[in-house]
This record gives sequence, structure tokens and C-alpha cells, in this order.
Amino acid sequence: MSLKFVERQQLKEKPNIKEVAFGTTFTDYMVSADYNKDDGWHDFKIIPYEPLSLDPSTAVLHYAQTVFEGLKAYKVDGETVLFRPEENFKRLNRSLERLSMPKIDENQALESLIELLKIEKDWVPNGKGEALYIRPVVFATSKSINVLPSSEYKFLIILSPVGGLFSQDGLGTTKIYTEDKYVRAVRGGVGEAKFGGNYASSMLAQEYANEKGYSQVLWLDGVEQQYLEEVGAMNIFFVKNGELYTPKLNGSILPGVTRKSIIEFARDRGYTVHEDRIHIDDFKKGLEDGSVTEVFGAGTAAVVAPVSHLNIHGEELKVGDGEVGPVAKEIYDTLTGIQTKRVEDKFNWVKEVK
Amino acid sequence: MSLKFVERQQLKEKPNIKEVAFGTTFTDYMVSADYNKDDGWHDFKIIPYEPLSLDPSTAVLHYAQTVFEGLKAYKVDGETVLFRPEENFKRLNRSLERLSMPKIDENQALESLIELLKIEKDWVPNGKGEALYIRPVVFATSKSINVLPSSEYKFLIILSPVGGLFSQDGLGTTKIYTEDKYVRAVRGGVGEAKFGGNYASSMLAQEYANEKGYSQVLWLDGVEQQYLEEVGAMNIFFVKNGELYTPKLNGSILPGVTRKSIIEFARDRGYTVHEDRIHIDDFKKGLEDGSVTEVFGAGTAAVVAPVSHLNIHGEELKVGDGEVGPVAKEIYDTLTGIQTKRVEDKFNWVKEVK
Ligand SMILES: Cc1ncc(COP(=O)(O)O)c(C=O)c1O
Ligand SMILES: Cc1ncc(COP(=O)(O)O)c(C=O)c1O
Repeated sequence: MSLKFVERQQLKEKPNIKEVAFGTTFTDYMVSADYNKDDGWHDFKIIPYEPLSLDPSTAVLHYAQTVFEGLKAYKVDGETVLFRPEENFKRLNRSLERLSMPKIDENQALESLIELLKIEKDWVPNGKGEALYIRPVVFATSKSINVLPSSEYKFLIILSPVGGLFSQDGLGTTKIYTEDKYVRAVRGGVGEAKFGGNYASSMLAQEYANEKGYSQVLWLDGVEQQYLEEVGAMNIFFVKNGELYTPKLNGSILPGVTRKSIIEFARDRGYTVHEDRIHIDDFKKGLEDGSVTEVFGAGTAAVVAPVSHLNIHGEELKVGDGEVGPVAKEIYDTLTGIQTKRVEDKFNWVKEVK
Repeated sequence: MSLKFVERQQLKEKPNIKEVAFGTTFTDYMVSADYNKDDGWHDFKIIPYEPLSLDPSTAVLHYAQTVFEGLKAYKVDGETVLFRPEENFKRLNRSLERLSMPKIDENQALESLIELLKIEKDWVPNGKGEALYIRPVVFATSKSINVLPSSEYKFLIILSPVGGLFSQDGLGTTKIYTEDKYVRAVRGGVGEAKFGGNYASSMLAQEYANEKGYSQVLWLDGVEQQYLEEVGAMNIFFVKNGELYTPKLNGSILPGVTRKSIIEFARDRGYTVHEDRIHIDDFKKGLEDGSVTEVFGAGTAAVVAPVSHLNIHGEELKVGDGEVGPVAKEIYDTLTGIQTKRVEDKFNWVKEVK
């Protein structure tokens, strides 16, 4: 692979990872590529992380044609590793298609990321729960406010060192608010795409949940507002009579790589895992009668987020004894174990950067 | 009002309006203001239209927090006039609220637009159907990829000279495809906000409609996919037994200024206007039995867009004789008449820029 590299004059000072807020510090370099109708995707390169010059008419600023991805690089025994990165670039392409944006060569995108990570290897932190968060993003760059798919796009990969999202060391618990007024996504819409607009449109409900003392929103389906979908930037799982349940992908749920991985290795470890259409009232009943013993969110940023309390239809319910449960702990340990090569990587999910 | 003005060295050459594509040419200046938590909205100014410098982590590029407006300035007897501009800034604030973005002082925003238009008066074209399209936009500018409402925003007003959207001179007809797979908006969502994400997420269906030979999509509601909502960037009206019908605002329809104005002046002219929940099958039956004689879209860009053919559930139906009908013509003439002061402005809708 021949990737153009523009070196910067001076490298940044590396911050103290314990002190940086999530997603506010970026490394020295980024991947950049451009798309136009004649050349397709072209000019893949690694350049200094620096401001972009964008015309006020740039399409993304008006019509929000933007999709992104999120994955992490971990430092294991001095080596940089990735967890199932092909899945993220596959999903990026599905998102691009849904938003009428041009697909990108998955291998080329991944290879450019690997080149970038080689250069930025000293930015990958190695403390517990720490990682280098990777943000591929594609957005519309036509200088036109005509409401049409843009004819030009930019692809970037930027990198940001992070600690754990919810807590700095391992597993805390979180309180969740079930949203029954606002809707995140609906079948026929864009919920299964990692589309920027899904996040902007979720923020108001997220703010209301925070005001009420909850850290995340549990979304219900957009049609009946009765079926579980997902939680903030995580998919949701629960344990009922010792078996795992998670909502079935239905077009409005983001198909998480963490979700998919948990389903796969939990089955391998002997768990029965149900992907079902789950009615909020059935779920609530399970919490009330004690058959639902654990609830947790799962996603790249937080890894596993055990839920201590859930507000459903205005009523606050405690999950089990309100502490981190054994299944969530096992899932967390297994997943982070595979990612950091302390647990056997049976499925060949870990990719070394070299 | 004290508005800072940064003069540019050289003015652009004005293009031939007959030759410019919609939304691709911009004037010499723009309004700019910034928001942060400490100062609120501040630094309102008129500056040269020029590229912005945006960090790759700028929130809008990732999470699409962006809302916009669209209105027009017309040239009448050498003077620049606006049509109900307060309505657009009111709607801007409603959109901002829904997207967890800070509201802006409506008067200050409007006054800054008026100052800009005074400077740019020579950019307002005066041919039939021509206007200066005005695009206020607010977007998130925090340098952070944490999924939170941004703490910084930018407000811009940019200006673009335009001819008529669908045809250069007055009224043509358009063919419309009723979308029954994809969904634009759902109650509890962001459909009634002029949110950039609504446009990005509509593009795929719009492209499919174009491929099938239709110029616009007629959207159905997101819950049952049975009730009429709106058309592309227009609200929809039809004439049945001589009376006007338009879908009732329900939270997922964009409340158009054109829609509102048509309802008001049509009633004043003696029309019965129904704002109803309209089932697609009832509408279809009306087209088949001939009781529905006209269908037209209505919005700032196209003004009035008579529909000649509609595809409903895969079947193409002709509207009346497929030509521009008398009611659409009357509405168009009245509306453009008021806007250009050839028809009495009973409701005091026209605002002179001076
Ligand atoms: C809405 C939403 N759901 C679920 C997830 C979990 O996906 P993944 O496991 O791929 O990070 C994410 C991404 O972080 C998300 O944004
Ligand atoms: C989705 C949508 N519906 C309807 C309209 C019509 O609104 P207005 O009459 O205010 O231009 C617009 C705006 O142009 C729109 O974007």
C-alpha cells in the first residue's frame, strides 16, 4: 500500500490520560481521503491533525449527510491490537449506502487505519480500561445547498486517547430511563445506520433523563412504543432465569459489534441467548417478579455497563440487588480478556497492528 | 443595532441568474454569530463570505446537530422585500429547542438579516420567479466527539440568488411517488423541526423516486404508513369537490410558512380549508372517482408545484387532466402577487427592507 504521508513539524505533548475528558484530545495525525464523481475515493493520505477549511455552503453543515464509526485500539504487551475492525468498516459501508453516500473500499480504509496506528503507536495508552478511540467519519463536502446527495465527500480517521467511559476503572453501575414520549428511530428510517443525525435527535431525551437523575435513555420502538430497542450508545442485554436476552435487530436498532460478539462467545460458553422482540411490560414483569436478575448495556465505548435501576412508565425499579451481577462480570471479563489477550481468542477477533 | 461590519477587498462578479444552479452561488457577505455557555449568543457581525476553519472533531461533522431555515427576498419596484420573515425565525427557535440547541433572539437575528440585505441589495434579482434565497443555519462547533449537546454553536446567514426551483418561469407540473417503504419522520421524533438530518435521511427514497421517473416523494406517517404527510421540501394540498385539504400538523410534518399562508388567505377568499388526518386510500379513491381534481405542493423554494401524476402503491394515477388546475393557479397568483405587491397585502405579510 502506498499511502502519502505528510509529516508535521512538531509533535504534540501527550496528555495525562487520567485527566482528559472523553473525545476532546486528538493525536498528531489523521487519515484523509476525498471523493468526487470522476475519481471516486482518492487521495488517501496521512496528514497532520489540523483544522479543515470548509465553505459555509458545505452540504454536511446544512443537510447532515454524515456517518461515522467507533472502535478502539488497545495496547497489549507493548503491541497495538484492534478488535474486529472489519466489522466497523462493513457497518460504515451499510451506513453510507443508507444515507446515499458512496461506499469506500473496506480493505483500503482498514489498511490506512493500520498505517496511521503504526505512526501513532505511542498514543495508545496501556492502563486498565484505557484505549485509543478510533473515529472514522465520512461527510458531505459539496458546496451546494440544493437538497441532493452531495457529489463530494471527505473521509477522515481521527484518534483520541480515552479511559473507560462510565468509570475510570472497570465496572460501575448506571441508572436508565425508559423513554416513552420521544422516539429515536422507526422501521423504514435510519436507526440501523451509524448516522450522525440519530445522535443529534436523541439529545433532548438524553438531557431530560439526566435531569431526572438517569444517565442513559432506554429507547422503545417507534411504531408501538412498546418494544425494547437500545440504550444511548449501547445495545441492551438482560438475564432472565439464567438465560441472556437482547432485542432482535429490526432495522431501527444499531447492530453493535459488541452485541454480536457477546452473543457469539456467550453461546460458546454455554449460555442460551435469545434475540427476541421484547415487550416493555414483559420485561417490567420480569424485574418485578425477580426472574430478570441483571440488565446491562454493551458497546465499544463503555464495553459493559451494568444497570442498577430502571425507570419504566414513571416507576423506578431496582435490578436484582442493584449491584454488578455475575453474568455482566463474566461477559465483561471475557470480552476485555479477549481484547487484551488474557483470554484465548478462539474466534480470531484480535488483529495485531504490524 | 450595532452590527460589526468587516468589508471585503473586492466584490464578486454577479452571475447570470439564468445560468446558476440552485444553491451554488453565494453573495459577498454573510451574517455570523457565535454561542458559548458563558457569553450566550454574541459577536453578531457581517463579514465576507469565506471558508470557515473547523477542527476535524467539530461536533456537527459527527453528530449532525444542525438546523436551518429558508426564506426569500424579492425585488419589488426597486425595493427589497421579505415575506413573513418572523415566522422563519420563530420556527428556527422551535427547531433549535428540539435539537437541544440554544435559542437565538428572533429580533436580533432578523435585524442582522435586514442589515445584510441592505448591503447586498444589488444581489436581489428582479425577474419573474427570481429571488434571493436566504439560508440561516445554526450548527454545533464544540471540538469534542463526546455524544452530548455541543457547548458552542455558530449562526450564519448566507444568501444565494435563485430562479424558480422547478421551472424558470412560473408553473410547471411535477410527478410524485408515494413512499410506502421508507419513513421520513414519526411522532416523538424530529420531523417538525427543520433539522438537517431529516434531509440526509430522505435522500435515498428521493433517489429511488427519481430513478422511477418521479421528481418528488410523498411521505406517509411513520406509525401506520397510511396517512399523508408532506412532499420533499413542500407541504401538500389537494382540491376535493372544490374544497382545499391539507394534512393536519401532527409533530412529524414540517409546519410550512407557505402552507400557513395559503390556509389563511384561501379562507379569506372564501375557500373551505380542511386540516385533516388523510388516509392514503381515501385520497386515492378521490383521484379515481374524480372528486379530487387538483394536487399541489407548497413551499418557499417552489412556491406552488402542481402535481400531474401520483404513484400510489405502485399504481400511477393522473390528477384531473394532468395540467395546472385553476385553484393551484389562483393560489400561485395570489401568493406571488402578495409577495411582489401586485395583490393587496391584507395581512401585512410583506416586510420592506429599509
Ligand atoms: C446507538 C448505538 N447503539 C449501540 C452501539 C454499540 O455498538 P458497538 O458495539 O459496535 O460499539 C452504538 C455504538 O457505540 C451506538 O451508537
Ligand atoms: C420538509 C419540508 N416541508 C415543507 C416545507 C415548506 O415550508 P415553507 O413553506 O416554510 O418553505 C419545507 C421547506 O421548504 C420543507 O423542508
